[in-house]
Amino acid sequence: MALIAITTDFGLADPFVGIMKGVLATRAPGAAVIDVTHGIPPQDVLAGALVLRHAAPYFPPGTIHLAVVDPGVGGSRRPICVETDAALFVGPDNGLFSLAAPAARTRRVVHLTDERFFLAPRSATFHGRDVFAPVAAALATGTPPAALGPAVTDPVRIAVPAVEAAPGRLRGLVLYVDRFGNLVTNIEAAALAAFPRQEVSTTIGNVRMHGIATAYADVEPGALLAVVGSWGLLEVARRDGSAAAALGVGVGAPVVVEGPAA
Amino acid sequence: MALIAITTDFGLADPFVGIMKGVLATRAPGAAVIDVTHGIPPQDVLAGALVLRHAAPYFPPGTIHLAVVDPGVGGSRRPICVETDAALFVGPDNGLFSLAAPAARTRRVVHLTDERFFLAPRSATFHGRDVFAPVAAALATGTPPAALGPAVTDPVRIAVPAVEAAPGRLRGLVLYVDRFGNLVTNIEAAALAAFPRQEVSTTIGNVRMHGIATAYADVEPGALLAVVGSWGLLEVARRDGSAAAALGVGVGAPVVVEGPAA
Amino acid sequence: MALIAITTDFGLADPFVGIMKGVLATRAPGAAVIDVTHGIPPQDVLAGALVLRHAAPYFPPGTIHLAVVDPGVGGSRRPICVETDAALFVGPDNGLFSLAAPAARTRRVVHLTDERFFLAPRSATFHGRDVFAPVAAALATGTPPAALGPAVTDPVRIAVPAVEAAPGRLRGLVLYVDRFGNLVTNIEAAALAAFPRQEVSTTIGNVRMHGIATAYADVEPGALLAVVGSWGLLEVARRDGSAAAALGVGVGAPVVVEGPAA
Repeated sequence: MALIAITTDFGLADPFVGIMKGVLATRAPGAAVIDVTHGIPPQDVLAGALVLRHAAPYFPPGTIHLAVVDPGVGGSRRPICVETDAALFVGPDNGLFSLAAPAARTRRVVHLTDERFFLAPRSATFHGRDVFAPVAAALATGTPPAALGPAVTDPVRIAVPAVEAAPGRLRGLVLYVDRFGNLVTNIEAAALAAFPRQEVSTTIGNVRMHGIATAYADVEPGALLAVVGSWGLLEVARRDGSAAAALGVGVGAPVVVEGPAA
Repeated sequence: MALIAITTDFGLADPFVGIMKGVLATRAPGAAVIDVTHGIPPQDVLAGALVLRHAAPYFPPGTIHLAVVDPGVGGSRRPICVETDAALFVGPDNGLFSLAAPAARTRRVVHLTDERFFLAPRSATFHGRDVFAPVAAALATGTPPAALGPAVTDPVRIAVPAVEAAPGRLRGLVLYVDRFGNLVTNIEAAALAAFPRQEVSTTIGNVRMHGIATAYADVEPGALLAVVGSWGLLEVARRDGSAAAALGVGVGAPVVVEGPAA
Repeated sequence: MALIAITTDFGLADPFVGIMKGVLATRAPGAAVIDVTHGIPPQDVLAGALVLRHAAPYFPPGTIHLAVVDPGVGGSRRPICVETDAALFVGPDNGLFSLAAPAARTRRVVHLTDERFFLAPRSATFHGRDVFAPVAAALATGTPPAALGPAVTDPVRIAVPAVEAAPGRLRGLVLYVDRFGNLVTNIEAAALAAFPRQEVSTTIGNVRMHGIATAYADVEPGALLAVVGSWGLLEVARRDGSAAAALGVGVGAPVVVEGPAA
């Protein structure tokens, strides 16, 4: 049985996601549907790409990821399907899939041009309903990606901002802030291995934290800490509270890690 | 397999929707359940009716719509089931179904009086759990609507506020504001056909927009535009932004469309 | 077919819940999954315990409740599974299950120590994904609780704050505020039976309400009322509005019920 996982910036206050699920239930009855999240900040393609990168590995092989963060809906951006060694991705060609489906793992990218798989008439503003959900339903019912349109050789790719590395120093930034106010950075756990764990310091705003904690419980309630979070990235957190609120910072804030070379 | 689609103003912060799904899982195990939305503004029956009108056509024939926007819970308003040529609707008799189930398409309206289909005891404040969910489960497991109670000949009906039409001029209003800040009006695409598409102007607040766009991408990022949205209604939107925030207007704001007669 | 019901404080803006569902779909394909709510206030174990107490009775026998409200993630609190006469509960040992699974109904509590049932590697910050979801999947696919680890004889228990009772007087407090602004107290319907229904008064802030209503519709729109809500607890509500906003009070506010002895 096919599994469709949906990721959007549609929120849940409106019926947009429900309507897409109605289309899926109509065209792929019996397919299982899971919401990854609909809370991507509106039109924030990089946040959507990050979420897909860190969520997709936890889904079964063959999952169809239906994802819509689409500032250019109705314009000239291409609708695409990306096939990797593990999953299928359906949505706009704006870089949304470039982290979850890196080039080295991509088998095929298809430009969705065959309108037989779309709803008719097709609106100018809701391709989630009229294009992407029915195409996901077609995949779920056995249509091979190659039947959906011609190959794309130049999909749009976006990248996570690079960390600046110098001897004894990494300069990154806050990539994502979660519901708890944890500040997820672009500094990967592997990069931290260059430093002795207890001699490193992390600076954000005008606060410096010493050491990398192994759990929130390493510090007192209310204290700030640096920890490697569930995405394998350095996070700045506050035990039993919000680091974002305590520090007054958000996405884009610079984060510096310093220490003696290992 | 039966499909139950749920629409409420319960939000998702509380367990109310989850509890209703527990009742459905207990009484109609195996029925598929889809959330249309639980974000209807509290007690806004017209918003609920609009959402049902624009969502229901995308669900499979025979879908059971369980919908609760119910300012009068526990009072004298009747609980009803409405059967149309396409679907079943279960909820309060307050007009919630009058747009999705217009009279011409309605086959039967039933007053839910048979308490054997309710939970016992029945609370005064949560008929979604105690009346409407168990009745939806009864329908999902094959109980015919007529078995639920006597016929209703005078269901409550509500209407979308009318557009005032004069030669060369339509005066409507904002019906609904979505998560992106798009302002959905009561002016239907068909009414716009009276004007040449590029010579029409749309005025809201102190802003006038020329022409009807065919996509957000017709204008520059940040610009306002008038466009026919996915509900077949004129919308005022802002490319890559919120028209509601930019204009400082919301539901009820007047919208005027003017142009030479076609 | 197994049913897994999920309750967390993760919210829906982030992909945390979706990722847990990916783990469930991978390890227990075909299990049904229902969201109770993900809107528990962050790290509010008592609110989570209340929600589970009032939701669990509406789920089918044998439901696996996967619940995560876990201020101590990664610290020394034990991960546990609680088996009652009606359901299974998987989550942290911090009192979260003590209201839904009272001692008298508990058959077994197990310390989840067998890492074969966890994901590897295991993060320090997301045991919902790495410990609790895979254990719930193991239960859903037939693993008996006793296979997951050794028995726990001293699970953490928390209690609802007690009502102070004196002749003709009950002093309680607001336990929970829902999306509609209803103020749910810790005063049970049974305690109110000590008073004649129409001669009782309820005082909160500087407002006194006479009588216990049987429905919101007993009072005029906009008026405040005291009513026994769907959890069997005294609630202070406002017809067609928010009592919390009207009174400017929240969780912890004192509530006094007075009247002649019955």
